[in-house]
Amino acid sequence: MRKAIATVSVSGLLTDKLDAVAAAGFDGVEIFDPDLISCPLPPRDIAARCADLGLDVDLFQPVRDIEGVPPEEFDAVLHRVRRKLAVAAELGAGTVLACSNVAGSSLADPDLTAEQLHRVGELAAEHGVVVAFEALAWGRHVNRVRQAWRAVQTADHPSLTLAVDTFHLLARGDGPEALVDVPGERIGFLQVADAPLLDMNVLEWSRHFRCFPGQGTLDVAGVVLAVLSAGYAGPLSLEVFSDLVREEQASETARDAMRSLVFLEDEVAGRLPAAGGPVLAAVPPPAASVSTAFVEVPGSPPVRALLEGLGFAPHGRHRTKPVTWWRNGAADVVVNDAAGTDTAIGLVAPPVAGVAARADALLWPKVERARGADEARLPGITSPSGLHVFVSAAAGDSDDWQHDFAADVAAADRPPGGGPLLGIDHVGVGVPPDRLDREAGFFRTLFGLAPGPVEEFMEPRGRLRSRALRPPRGDLRLVLNAVDAATGVSRPLGVTQVAFACADLLALVCRLRAAGVELLRVPDNYYADLEARFGLPAYRVEELRRHGVLYDRVGRGELLHAYTPVLATGFYVELLERRGGYDGYGAANATVRLAVQREQAR
Amino acid sequence: MRKAIATVSVSGLLTDKLDAVAAAGFDGVEIFDPDLISCPLPPRDIAARCADLGLDVDLFQPVRDIEGVPPEEFDAVLHRVRRKLAVAAELGAGTVLACSNVAGSSLADPDLTAEQLHRVGELAAEHGVVVAFEALAWGRHVNRVRQAWRAVQTADHPSLTLAVDTFHLLARGDGPEALVDVPGERIGFLQVADAPLLDMNVLEWSRHFRCFPGQGTLDVAGVVLAVLSAGYAGPLSLEVFSDLVREEQASETARDAMRSLVFLEDEVAGRLPAAGGPVLAAVPPPAASVSTAFVEVPGSPPVRALLEGLGFAPHGRHRTKPVTWWRNGAADVVVNDAAGTDTAIGLVAPPVAGVAARADALLWPKVERARGADEARLPGITSPSGLHVFVSAAAGDSDDWQHDFAADVAAADRPPGGGPLLGIDHVGVGVPPDRLDREAGFFRTLFGLAPGPVEEFMEPRGRLRSRALRPPRGDLRLVLNAVDAATGVSRPLGVTQVAFACADLLALVCRLRAAGVELLRVPDNYYADLEARFGLPAYRVEELRRHGVLYDRVGRGELLHAYTPVLATGFYVELLERRGGYDGYGAANATVRLAVQREQAR
Repeated sequence: MRKAIATVSVSGLLTDKLDAVAAAGFDGVEIFDPDLISCPLPPRDIAARCADLGLDVDLFQPVRDIEGVPPEEFDAVLHRVRRKLAVAAELGAGTVLACSNVAGSSLADPDLTAEQLHRVGELAAEHGVVVAFEALAWGRHVNRVRQAWRAVQTADHPSLTLAVDTFHLLARGDGPEALVDVPGERIGFLQVADAPLLDMNVLEWSRHFRCFPGQGTLDVAGVVLAVLSAGYAGPLSLEVFSDLVREEQASETARDAMRSLVFLEDEVAGRLPAAGGPVLAAVPPPAASVSTAFVEVPGSPPVRALLEGLGFAPHGRHRTKPVTWWRNGAADVVVNDAAGTDTAIGLVAPPVAGVAARADALLWPKVERARGADEARLPGITSPSGLHVFVSAAAGDSDDWQHDFAADVAAADRPPGGGPLLGIDHVGVGVPPDRLDREAGFFRTLFGLAPGPVEEFMEPRGRLRSRALRPPRGDLRLVLNAVDAATGVSRPLGVTQVAFACADLLALVCRLRAAGVELLRVPDNYYADLEARFGLPAYRVEELRRHGVLYDRVGRGELLHAYTPVLATGFYVELLERRGGYDGYGAANATVRLAVQREQAR
Repeated sequence: MRKAIATVSVSGLLTDKLDAVAAAGFDGVEIFDPDLISCPLPPRDIAARCADLGLDVDLFQPVRDIEGVPPEEFDAVLHRVRRKLAVAAELGAGTVLACSNVAGSSLADPDLTAEQLHRVGELAAEHGVVVAFEALAWGRHVNRVRQAWRAVQTADHPSLTLAVDTFHLLARGDGPEALVDVPGERIGFLQVADAPLLDMNVLEWSRHFRCFPGQGTLDVAGVVLAVLSAGYAGPLSLEVFSDLVREEQASETARDAMRSLVFLEDEVAGRLPAAGGPVLAAVPPPAASVSTAFVEVPGSPPVRALLEGLGFAPHGRHRTKPVTWWRNGAADVVVNDAAGTDTAIGLVAPPVAGVAARADALLWPKVERARGADEARLPGITSPSGLHVFVSAAAGDSDDWQHDFAADVAAADRPPGGGPLLGIDHVGVGVPPDRLDREAGFFRTLFGLAPGPVEEFMEPRGRLRSRALRPPRGDLRLVLNAVDAATGVSRPLGVTQVAFACADLLALVCRLRAAGVELLRVPDNYYADLEARFGLPAYRVEELRRHGVLYDRVGRGELLHAYTPVLATGFYVELLERRGGYDGYGAANATVRLAVQREQAR
């Protein structure tokens, strides 16, 4: 289906915006009036420029405050509308968006509104364009889609249609059912935008926090499905603005935007009855299951000392690269001694080729890397924060990452590693604060992970915002961490934390301490608080205190966990034991852990 | 009166916080439990540390979810409370803050609540401390101060008192009258915090946007006055947390905090009946009137060319410094040729000595500068954004800034400068985005300026947030501008804009263009929009267009304005003509102006 975007959705001057939108492969644009007003080119030249770039001008927007106007002011409105319709005609825009009136002086008079909208429809017909009327979520008297639809019905003019904007519709708590009786040919335009669910003034929410479909939590696909099912045949057009988008490069935003429409189209394609509707393109599905294979860290003496201290041992050597595979029980870490490497994460997410094709279709950038003959395919994709994610087949397959190591022993014949670790419980990834939602969107769109809510913790100098993600099937647990801090506070990116699971944390910690491994020292005050909160028996509190182990309890689930100090690179290890189905990450202990990490880092 | 602050109000680890708080001159602290839990020192050592620093521990906080608890869970609550009361006793804190229950499982049963609070009061008495019960604004059943007060009354235990927090009280829409019948001796603690008025979830509002009294818009002084009038004799204690405070240096926050209490005490001192109440310290009052004297800019060939082009001419030379006074009509600009100088602003705000004393009392930092014999006093104060503000007496006084120039001619005898400018209409000051409210607080507390609301404009690459300030008397118009932009976008600080008023802008622009002075080129599309919006006669639109003049109209007031391009330093000049009482700043034209400035800068 045809894809468009509003120029207000990308940063820069109008001509830069058009270049970026065309380069991202869009079919059309909505020209935002303030962009036009600020542009030195006359409308006809803007139209020519769009044509040169292969862009249709699908919409000119917005005309505001045109209905429910006190009658004595309506002539001035008609004058303004006439002028804007003429501009639209010069732009070659077949449709003009009109937003519902926000003026305090506007009147709650449905008949007057309908009469005025009818008059606007007549003007539109004179100019050979169609007006699409939208209920702004903060409109004075028309702020829900049903009100706008009733006004359009009563106005009853073929050149006056309904505009559907997923944000405005969903922000007021309406859903797809609000469109149940609206014929597709009466929907003049469909604008799509997503947003995180925020309990705040809807105007501020709209202005600062919209995001691309797939980055937020609104049921955008449900509304799009309803509009397409009704028979709407126009473009799918993004109108997204936010603080982040305003600051971002136009080229990057345009690519995010295109990806979000590909994702949205795919979501809808699976749910729309095939017959008669628009032709929707599907992309290869996400992996059926996503599990952690390994984490990769750059080699350095502190990293090797940390791994050895924890009981890891070299388990294989890459056949062509200066890369060593370390193992402890069922936990795998890959140490890369090539210069200038970053951290990375390996996932078992078959089929490998399908995931690679899905990444391609969604415009996620590939990691370019040499692949030796007979090596596993192991496609790599770079996330918005710059993390490399490698995709492996299941153990034993020719695209299994283990296949590339220790060519002298077949992977399947290799003995299990010694050591008590049960595997990687979760991986913590540091992302820039302004990329948290985009990073979540990467894992959601490409791997089908479900992002949890944003949780917030106090850092000694700033805030930590975290989002945990889980796949529908598979053992991956991913935690994205963004630190909002003053300039000068270190905010390491990439894989900063690996949490290894074990069956008996107290015993493990005891052995590690006896072997001289340094672990985070937890203050006695923490244990006094633990006793106060949970009423644990004194011997248990003392046991935890002696071992410096943190504790959490939710229902019958218990978490015991301990940390290594933070290396200079920002990397650290957590060791944990889950009991009784504990499913969280010890959030109650985050503040004390962050404070102690900082205390011991200085 | 005694001044305290909660450790949650400053960043860092507990010991850093205590150092910063003591250095800022506070008498006491509230110890925030998570700070204590994260601290390696036991409570008695923390108490000793406070004592060494001259700080009383006025409060230990908070104990949560202690009332309206399902009866079968109350034993665990008592256990927890007992432990926390013991910690308070070890800290030497006479008072413990308890927040109203937020748990979904809590019960709306006033009798149970009172009975449980009574039991907590008994425990407190056993430990020799007092519990102060606070209505959190998002408490489940107790979220307004009257509800908390009724619960305290019904619980009826001398060791259970009411805590008043100005934020929680005012955030729910209550005011000082809510405390009308509460005896001062039943108020166990008074916490103060301010906030900007935001229409959002109150928990998020509280967590992210609190600020120090004087920085927000809540009637903090009104509530404090009511509490003091009731006979409360405890400390005035700040509990402020926000994203900004969490990221800020502890030392800087502690000084802001102390200043806010000095300001608050002064505000209240003027309104409290003298007899019997606490001893309140007043500070010297702000200047009775504040007007613009001059702006100072660093000398450079482009600045001199700009001034000359606009018709400014040298009018005097500083008697001891490499500084030249330029004048055009009644508009004064000072050009400083000393190396490494910044922009500055000069204000006529007598009495000069009083303003200097007020700045001192409010801990605003002085500009250190050499003063020649017989030179004007001209005290300088540095704002939070680093702007230097110089304070001059009225013309003719010995502390008049003009007195320091051109010693050969007495200031009063000097002829008026030639040129059409009526004076400086307003001054635009660039501030870092995270200092906008603090900068407004500087001008509000020191000069008594009233800040307007934050207005937002789209920049081609980011957002411009502006706040205009006016004094109760005097002609100063100050506009603070903060640009939220991506890294790499220039955001000049200090005086970036001077707007000069004139009586006939079209004639002035005509003369300037004829003389080859470059002004911002406004797109034709702007004039088409102007015609559409205002329905101006064609000849007027054409006149504006030909001159490249921007136009705004509000009621009968009209604004005509034009801009010079932006110099490499970020400095530019606006020329304007106000007609019919127009009182704004042409906000409707900001987007086009910002876009064109950017267009012409590349």
